[in-house]
Amino acid sequence: MTTLYVCTTCKREGADPDADRDGAKLLAAIVAQNVPDAVQVVPVECLSACSNGCAVALTEAGKWTYVYGRMDPDLHAAEILEGAAKYAASADGIVPWRDRPVIFRKQSVARIPPLVPAQE
Amino acid sequence: MTTLYVCTTCKREGADPDADRDGAKLLAAIVAQNVPDAVQVVPVECLSACSNGCAVALTEAGKWTYVYGRMDPDLHAAEILEGAAKYAASADGIVPWRDRPVIFRKQSVARIPPLVPAQE
Repeated sequence: MTTLYVCTTCKREGADPDADRDGAKLLAAIVAQNVPDAVQVVPVECLSACSNGCAVALTEAGKWTYVYGRMDPDLHAAEILEGAAKYAASADGIVPWRDRPVIFRKQSVARIPPLVPAQE
Repeated sequence: MTTLYVCTTCKREGADPDADRDGAKLLAAIVAQNVPDAVQVVPVECLSACSNGCAVALTEAGKWTYVYGRMDPDLHAAEILEGAAKYAASADGIVPWRDRPVIFRKQSVARIPPLVPAQE
């Protein structure tokens, strides 16, 4: 099962500090979509990617973990889930470059190798 | 066992593109130190944190994963290993804020929750 972490405390750059948190809005926008069966959406307080908020992360045992930033709650929920479904369907978390949503190609914050190599 | 990933393809911002890779230099500087027994240093090609190179990541089963950026191969090897040792000694990867090396406090790129909650 793929986990999609959504940082709910995230603010986007330039956001009104007194407004609702963009991360909470992004979470609401994502769960309002058809979440793929192979993906569980898990809210998390702070992915420490604050200079790149809103941030999300994709992870699964045996796969590379990816962190993406500068997500827009008004625009990107469907694309995030499309990318999450492709990640879930991949063997090692590495989706072919051209198959990735544009926001995943352009807004990677970091990736981390699988804890246990997927091929072992 | 804690894994310290070091991106060997990293360039630092403003680095000469024809010079040796700063990531490879950082790896060499780290393994030239006394690496703590509880830490294994693993080179990796690209942590996708290229706008924050040099990048390293700390991970271990059941612990939060941390990614740090803008490491300096000439200055930070000892501090990275000091932080890695404290991470290895922690229960969940979360080292008390004041105990973290300054570069870890100021240069976090992202963190990701443990795949399996540490308290389960």
